[in-house]
Amino acid sequence: MKAIILFGHGARDSRWREPFDRLASLWQEQHASTPVELAFLEMMQPSLEEAVTALAAKGATQITIVPVFFGQGGHLRNDFPVLLQACQEKFPAVSLSATLAVGEDLGVLQAIIDFGSQKIS
Amino acid sequence: MKAIILFGHGARDSRWREPFDRLASLWQEQHASTPVELAFLEMMQPSLEEAVTALAAKGATQITIVPVFFGQGGHLRNDFPVLLQACQEKFPAVSLSATLAVGEDLGVLQAIIDFGSQKIS
Repeated sequence: MKAIILFGHGARDSRWREPFDRLASLWQEQHASTPVELAFLEMMQPSLEEAVTALAAKGATQITIVPVFFGQGGHLRNDFPVLLQACQEKFPAVSLSATLAVGEDLGVLQAIIDFGSQKIS
Repeated sequence: MKAIILFGHGARDSRWREPFDRLASLWQEQHASTPVELAFLEMMQPSLEEAVTALAAKGATQITIVPVFFGQGGHLRNDFPVLLQACQEKFPAVSLSATLAVGEDLGVLQAIIDFGSQKIS
């Protein structure tokens, strides 16, 4: 079974995660048969390992991790691959893969432009 | 004249800003008569004040600042209003306003979901 993890940075202020909760709800509404978990790099729970554990317990065998970051800086280039590798070693029966950061996607960038356009007109 | 500032967090790794440079280019292609500047909270230049200065020098009188953040945590709730107020005091003839973070927009969230959908299928 396929599953998805939406992986964010995390922040001290719990209200920061509201869009992430909304993303997970949207995903589940639109992809009822593909379980989703959030995961955070720091300051918020669950961790990437906790999210993989939860999805593996539900029977996930292929998990795609989508970094919900704009840019690919040190967190995604250095910290994230180490975490991903550790999770893969802990769950050898689950195939883990990661996409580029969502900020690399032209559709996401265009949606940001469209948001700005609505606000300025 | 209206203008827009796309305001991001900033990061140590210069490659982190690539999507922001792409956003500014997209904006300028699609809104040739509305100047755009990037600005960063920390670790990258220009600052918000430098961006306002540049746009005011081009004749901007109404500047909309779009926080290119997912969540509204401490940076947007605490740090950003202080910066915005300081800029407003420095440029009383320019009207500064700010939108919510782009992560509050359903269109942006849907674009992230669509990106994930493409990657998982």
